[in-house]
Amino acid sequence: MWRGPGNGFRKWPRSWSFPKRGMCMKKKAFQDYYPDLLNHCYGCGRLNEHGLQIKSYWDGEETVCTFHPKPYHTAIPGYVYGGLIASIIDCHATGTAAAAAYRTEGRTMDTEPPLRFLTASLHVDYLRPAPIEGPLELRGQVKEIKGRKVVVAVAVSVKGEVCARGEVVAVQMPDHLVPGNR
Amino acid sequence: MWRGPGNGFRKWPRSWSFPKRGMCMKKKAFQDYYPDLLNHCYGCGRLNEHGLQIKSYWDGEETVCTFHPKPYHTAIPGYVYGGLIASIIDCHATGTAAAAAYRTEGRTMDTEPPLRFLTASLHVDYLRPAPIEGPLELRGQVKEIKGRKVVVAVAVSVKGEVCARGEVVAVQMPDHLVPGNR
Repeated sequence: MWRGPGNGFRKWPRSWSFPKRGMCMKKKAFQDYYPDLLNHCYGCGRLNEHGLQIKSYWDGEETVCTFHPKPYHTAIPGYVYGGLIASIIDCHATGTAAAAAYRTEGRTMDTEPPLRFLTASLHVDYLRPAPIEGPLELRGQVKEIKGRKVVVAVAVSVKGEVCARGEVVAVQMPDHLVPGNR
Repeated sequence: MWRGPGNGFRKWPRSWSFPKRGMCMKKKAFQDYYPDLLNHCYGCGRLNEHGLQIKSYWDGEETVCTFHPKPYHTAIPGYVYGGLIASIIDCHATGTAAAAAYRTEGRTMDTEPPLRFLTASLHVDYLRPAPIEGPLELRGQVKEIKGRKVVVAVAVSVKGEVCARGEVVAVQMPDHLVPGNR
């Protein structure tokens, strides 16, 4: 038993606040809530061991994702491959779309039924080469939510400098595409 | 020595045409002409052992690329990851842009100086899920060549059915980005 200095048998010094329930648990990303059957995506699937496994979170009204490119994710030497930038914009945006849809329904991402989004269209403007050292910071903003459609804008920065801007039109996955319903 | 039936000592039957010089050599792809210093791209670099190493060719006025996705290049199970589709559209289009620029200058891709293109913008419309069995066939069309800019449209099909359409604005790489000039 540990004894605080001069505190007799009290194990927890009076001046320390007691940790709240769950405070020691790692914060879950949007992608951690995807159902296992829909968690194999190369870009964001927790269960795709070959994939990029990006993680996205709320940061106020924006969403954020930090990605560390591998040395081989290169375009011309020293700079990040544009297809990788397009890929992580895509997955961060569909994750943002899902999180925003839950918010709109006034429920958390661990409630049923699950909401999962597909990409209808993707647009990326490459503004300047992104240094391969990274990390890439993606910040997403929901531009529109209408029915099953969510439009998300994503800015990709390295060390505070915006290298690319993307816009994704995401649509809620039709039931017939969910594994098990096919 | 092989003897044709009733042909005495002739080794090559009269009815066969003799192979022309170079006929047995494998056709080179656009990417095979990229200079080594610019051949590390994750999507199309011959020297990127972790990369996709796509290969693009002329087919009349169009360009073509066939890509076999790996089982882990998945979005939802059974279908190709959209970020992969965006990536190969990107690289097939920049390859097409380079090939078209050489054609416009009336020279072949093995002549100096080398022409290499970067992506200014990429747009992809995902029309239907692409089955993971593939293969993906990409067909590129040059929509515009103006100065250092080339606009390329790419259709992505599986078994003749178009799954995605892309458009890329490619620009000739500025000299200061070429390794060695930096």
